[in-house]
Amino acid sequence: MSRSTIGTALLWGVATLVLSLSPTYSEERPPDKRARDYGIPFGFGEPGPLNAITDVEGVLVGQVTLREGNGKLVPGQGPVRTGVTAILPHGGDLWNEKVPAAGFVLNGNGEMTGLHWVNEHGALEVPILMTNTLSVPRVADGVITYMLEKYPDIGIGDDVVLPVVGECDDSTLNDIRGRHVRAEHAVRAIREARSGPVEEGAVGAGTGMIAYDFKGGIGTSSRRLPEARGGFTVGVLVNANLGLRRNLLIAGVPVGEALTDIPEPEADAEGSILIVVATDAPLLHRQLLRLARRASLGLARTGTVSRHGSGDLFIAFSTGLRVPHYPQEPFVDIRYLEDAFLNPLFEAVVGATEEAIINALVAAETTVGRDGHTARAIPMERVVEILSRHRRLVRVPSVP
Amino acid sequence: MSRSTIGTALLWGVATLVLSLSPTYSEERPPDKRARDYGIPFGFGEPGPLNAITDVEGVLVGQVTLREGNGKLVPGQGPVRTGVTAILPHGGDLWNEKVPAAGFVLNGNGEMTGLHWVNEHGALEVPILMTNTLSVPRVADGVITYMLEKYPDIGIGDDVVLPVVGECDDSTLNDIRGRHVRAEHAVRAIREARSGPVEEGAVGAGTGMIAYDFKGGIGTSSRRLPEARGGFTVGVLVNANLGLRRNLLIAGVPVGEALTDIPEPEADAEGSILIVVATDAPLLHRQLLRLARRASLGLARTGTVSRHGSGDLFIAFSTGLRVPHYPQEPFVDIRYLEDAFLNPLFEAVVGATEEAIINALVAAETTVGRDGHTARAIPMERVVEILSRHRRLVRVPSVP
Amino acid sequence: MSRSTIGTALLWGVATLVLSLSPTYSEERPPDKRARDYGIPFGFGEPGPLNAITDVEGVLVGQVTLREGNGKLVPGQGPVRTGVTAILPHGGDLWNEKVPAAGFVLNGNGEMTGLHWVNEHGALEVPILMTNTLSVPRVADGVITYMLEKYPDIGIGDDVVLPVVGECDDSTLNDIRGRHVRAEHAVRAIREARSGPVEEGAVGAGTGMIAYDFKGGIGTSSRRLPEARGGFTVGVLVNANLGLRRNLLIAGVPVGEALTDIPEPEADAEGSILIVVATDAPLLHRQLLRLARRASLGLARTGTVSRHGSGDLFIAFSTGLRVPHYPQEPFVDIRYLEDAFLNPLFEAVVGATEEAIINALVAAETTVGRDGHTARAIPMERVVEILSRHRRLVRVPSVP
Amino acid sequence: MSRSTIGTALLWGVATLVLSLSPTYSEERPPDKRARDYGIPFGFGEPGPLNAITDVEGVLVGQVTLREGNGKLVPGQGPVRTGVTAILPHGGDLWNEKVPAAGFVLNGNGEMTGLHWVNEHGALEVPILMTNTLSVPRVADGVITYMLEKYPDIGIGDDVVLPVVGECDDSTLNDIRGRHVRAEHAVRAIREARSGPVEEGAVGAGTGMIAYDFKGGIGTSSRRLPEARGGFTVGVLVNANLGLRRNLLIAGVPVGEALTDIPEPEADAEGSILIVVATDAPLLHRQLLRLARRASLGLARTGTVSRHGSGDLFIAFSTGLRVPHYPQEPFVDIRYLEDAFLNPLFEAVVGATEEAIINALVAAETTVGRDGHTARAIPMERVVEILSRHRRLVRVPSVP
Repeated sequence: MSRSTIGTALLWGVATLVLSLSPTYSEERPPDKRARDYGIPFGFGEPGPLNAITDVEGVLVGQVTLREGNGKLVPGQGPVRTGVTAILPHGGDLWNEKVPAAGFVLNGNGEMTGLHWVNEHGALEVPILMTNTLSVPRVADGVITYMLEKYPDIGIGDDVVLPVVGECDDSTLNDIRGRHVRAEHAVRAIREARSGPVEEGAVGAGTGMIAYDFKGGIGTSSRRLPEARGGFTVGVLVNANLGLRRNLLIAGVPVGEALTDIPEPEADAEGSILIVVATDAPLLHRQLLRLARRASLGLARTGTVSRHGSGDLFIAFSTGLRVPHYPQEPFVDIRYLEDAFLNPLFEAVVGATEEAIINALVAAETTVGRDGHTARAIPMERVVEILSRHRRLVRVPSVP
Repeated sequence: MSRSTIGTALLWGVATLVLSLSPTYSEERPPDKRARDYGIPFGFGEPGPLNAITDVEGVLVGQVTLREGNGKLVPGQGPVRTGVTAILPHGGDLWNEKVPAAGFVLNGNGEMTGLHWVNEHGALEVPILMTNTLSVPRVADGVITYMLEKYPDIGIGDDVVLPVVGECDDSTLNDIRGRHVRAEHAVRAIREARSGPVEEGAVGAGTGMIAYDFKGGIGTSSRRLPEARGGFTVGVLVNANLGLRRNLLIAGVPVGEALTDIPEPEADAEGSILIVVATDAPLLHRQLLRLARRASLGLARTGTVSRHGSGDLFIAFSTGLRVPHYPQEPFVDIRYLEDAFLNPLFEAVVGATEEAIINALVAAETTVGRDGHTARAIPMERVVEILSRHRRLVRVPSVP
Repeated sequence: MSRSTIGTALLWGVATLVLSLSPTYSEERPPDKRARDYGIPFGFGEPGPLNAITDVEGVLVGQVTLREGNGKLVPGQGPVRTGVTAILPHGGDLWNEKVPAAGFVLNGNGEMTGLHWVNEHGALEVPILMTNTLSVPRVADGVITYMLEKYPDIGIGDDVVLPVVGECDDSTLNDIRGRHVRAEHAVRAIREARSGPVEEGAVGAGTGMIAYDFKGGIGTSSRRLPEARGGFTVGVLVNANLGLRRNLLIAGVPVGEALTDIPEPEADAEGSILIVVATDAPLLHRQLLRLARRASLGLARTGTVSRHGSGDLFIAFSTGLRVPHYPQEPFVDIRYLEDAFLNPLFEAVVGATEEAIINALVAAETTVGRDGHTARAIPMERVVEILSRHRRLVRVPSVP
Repeated sequence: MSRSTIGTALLWGVATLVLSLSPTYSEERPPDKRARDYGIPFGFGEPGPLNAITDVEGVLVGQVTLREGNGKLVPGQGPVRTGVTAILPHGGDLWNEKVPAAGFVLNGNGEMTGLHWVNEHGALEVPILMTNTLSVPRVADGVITYMLEKYPDIGIGDDVVLPVVGECDDSTLNDIRGRHVRAEHAVRAIREARSGPVEEGAVGAGTGMIAYDFKGGIGTSSRRLPEARGGFTVGVLVNANLGLRRNLLIAGVPVGEALTDIPEPEADAEGSILIVVATDAPLLHRQLLRLARRASLGLARTGTVSRHGSGDLFIAFSTGLRVPHYPQEPFVDIRYLEDAFLNPLFEAVVGATEEAIINALVAAETTVGRDGHTARAIPMERVVEILSRHRRLVRVPSVP
């Protein structure tokens, strides 16, 4: 959710300097070039082959992007800059083969529905969906539609279903009152979810997002632990919509402070971030809650203080275990990883969360939305230059 | 939410005896006769004039009941036995004059959306809605519709809004897959909310509820503290959909055990209960959380153990204070009641919760739903007889 | 902990009537006669052979009672009415073979140390100790002494240890400022802990307790599930020090209201209750947290509203699984009971908690403490008479 | 608390390279030179005049340092490298003029006693003490001693008292089994607490601490908000005992990676951190909980991932409001700061927490403890050189 701070800002005397677009500012960005490709260093081990949440085997991501119209806001009509993103722990029978899961709220100025049940049973039985704040109900309705179709006995002889849908506010760019993301878009995002590379930036639920006063949105990253530390994979996907420009850190360097000449979006908003952590390590709910809490620490490394108006809600799940739906036998046999071995996973969560957020910034293209509101892409040449000046670039791997 | 226990029940060897309808069983119930009118005693002080949540000045309740069709379930068409109930802390400008609030989850097998924000900011800024599990999204969409109309700047220059919608599962009686409660019903429930007596039993969100294997639904009660203890009012409204027959206690007497000859509903479900606690005592979020937790203790006095499949979610608010939306001044002056003086309010919550649940049972009429599934009204003559045998009736006040 | 309510009571106009000792009042109580032996009914299945927490195989209880001196309080000297109670999940190598555990706080006006670690790791690695509020540090020091002796590498090559010590306030009867329970008493309680029957009432940590304005203290009870429901045992041990006389329910009957002629203890206190839940069902931390929460519901059936000044802290553990200390292998294989099968355990917790509290009252003998303060034993003849009048007695089982 | 990771480390194949002491390594450090004095930049505004928690008016700090003996560990005798630190919200009648407070647990592998009550009542009524893990009981006993002396009616006509004592494990350097910090040291730390500059590094509870495999301990910092943002002060005091060398960030630069040639302490431990946040902003418990959570984000900026074995426990209090002990009147009038104005305070917490941790490292002198175990001071010349290479030094203010 967003909590505007206009009144607050004035009261506290915070002046926001809005310069006109610098002539040297370029909106171009090379396709598929990610933070690492610029030589930005990230800690805590090596990513998996895709450097994405989909490196966790079985995880699927689907996104539907809605972009339509330009110019002045006509509430209910547009312009539309929004979408929906679906994350599935696996493509199988999720209802009957749930996965252990846990939700954590760093700052509750936002919504992720369904967390009471996730945390009570310690399991996830539905896809995780992300969308804009006012479309949460319609997307949740879509999740129900999808589940009812797939499981014809739900609500008759079988249980009922509780969707897990998180939100961020895209109202600076999007006609959010129009609730343009509808049930069918959610169904489509779920149906089209697949493994492989994940599109980042201004796509899906990230279409209208703004992070650190640049264009934000979907970002992802992963870490693959060495065999000697378990060989597990941790993947993170974020929808980044938070932070003040002046607070932005990249690789520990206060890059945001140096980029204040670039115009900020016209409307001030506090933002939010949704973070999904996936791992194939066989973990229990309690342990996943520990992982979800670590997402806070990765987030902190990008500089934010989790502002009052930010809905910072995280969910972690493990594909390494299954939780039955209607257990035919009372007992479940599992092999889980003991807590003494969690540290490499904690590191992976922190590292992949930080990188996923920066990836979102790197991928997102300048987006002009309602009323001409503009969220500019972070200028990577300048970022590279700043990091270079601070000797914080690593040898750039060869880029395709 | 409901978690069917059919498989479980068999595995654990719990036989559910279903007799045919006893000839002495009567479905008639005198209108407006409530638990106290039968001489059932309840503790912890005296109710307010309406013995309802609306005794808390300003609180409004609106309900829309949907009943249509009979016979065999045709998913998507009916029969329909469902509805929606809205509770408003006050009829004024709730968005700009929020009330302190807190949510507590006794057993999270269910949903009440919006609680992350309620607990982070410690305030409630929207009406509380209740409906069936699968209609939560549509009702939430209705809350948004209502708020967007009332506050035309939401999502443009103002913040976005997060609905608070709770659910119970009415699928034993209702074509829940049909999602018959739609956005417009939610809007109507909010718009038609009023002070005065509250209809109980099989109305609004309570239309398809089953409690202790009898017909359940909406129930309400209140306590007015003596002036010497502060003179505050506590009101409780429940949507009761939980419990096993054999566990039912009324006024401490195991009434349920003595009524096992009455047929139970055909489909077994675990149920849920939503509890709303209102008070005019000027309390902070932290204190309201303490009140919300006490709803557990009132619930326990009706006999349930908060079963695995039950979504037992509670919310408490205070009309005695206001929380500003966009504070023009950084400081808020309040006068709150210190914790040392909370005990009378704790007692009131426990007493009113117990009584509200029994009121729901007393008011609810036998309801035949989909596939002829039948939730029978609790037979009050027999209840009275049992309590009388146990010398637990008080002198019956004169009934109009 | 206790929070006196003297000032509060006056402000709210609550008069406490203190009559002189009724001539018909008898302090005699038959040894070893427990609540069931009087025909008092309790629900939710049958107890194990001892009707005690020690019915859970392996669980040990040790108690040290300190009683010394009479008459006027000389702070630091006496009179002494206090003690310490130790509960061990098993008598083996608890440090290396921890058990899954979880702590829950219903009302945090009290202390149980060590719960942060219990809930983070989901395990218990030390005995659970109970004592009076001001002796908690000395008892915790004793736990450390015990552990250091037993594990000579703790604090050198091995980890350090965090005691789990709960408290209730016995200052109405006891010279609590004297901190008479010392480290060596804690060590003795642990060392002398054994299986078999558990002494109840005014013993160990229960020596100076007051419950429902009668003499309270240690109580215990258990439930053994039928084989068809899993055959597990649940045991509960409480230290009951809470509640107002007028709120007391026994078997659902408001017995307290009928016993207001019996003088209440001179000093008013709000009390507390510590509840330990043990089971041999193989449960995870998350599930044990669910069990611990259910202790609230058993407590509620005895009538209290969990008053502001009451420290109501609960801990649950399972002897059915082990958690390794220094796992040599990263993976742990376990077989746990799925949540769908928890309902019989929830029932057992509620039933055994209610019964343990009443057992504490039944066992506790009238105790005269500092300044002649007197906590009277609940008069069982009158309780029996009241329950009989309400037809709430069951056929009394033969008593040895 | 500490959780050794020796076995784990081996299992996961983490080799720790221990070189012999580099000849260029200097243990000298200029007295009173703090992180800022080296030109290290910290964000989020300006510190108060002392750059210490004592910039929050009224806050007092007292420390007792125990250092005795050298050479081989003789458990129970020494060598002794430990101590105790006391923080008082104000020097007045804390029992009767409590302050709003809240505790938050980021990772519960540790202890801070008394938090249940702090979070239930939302207030702090005792000094906060820090010491080593095994001395927590003796220090808590000392707090009780202090309170009993100061308040002669505690435990007689007044309530009982629950100490707030946090711990970190200093067993690598200290004979922790000796429990050398005793009650009288706690009393002395409280009695000698004063305003003014706070000694940092290897003093008080920080005497035996190790942070990022360098010598750690007590650190403090503050932020004073501009008048236009409220003019409030936030002070932070930490006892830093956590983190792996290789994870250390200073001003965002991975300084730790560059210092791996400096020998690490012989015994491996996971550490812990206690963080106390003080502010004069008038905040409620719920808001202080939000501040306490932000300490996580400041911690993250120093590089740790909050390892499994770390007890990361935080407490925040406000000196800007008072909570009465025995309220004579039921109502309390307060003026609090609305949440919309918390962002500058969140920033201050994050900034001061980061700086306090680095201050601890900067101040701590190389300490040789039991068995010759050595925790080396971080070599500031090299840190400065590294930061300089990364152009992350600011103009150094003139140092006395």
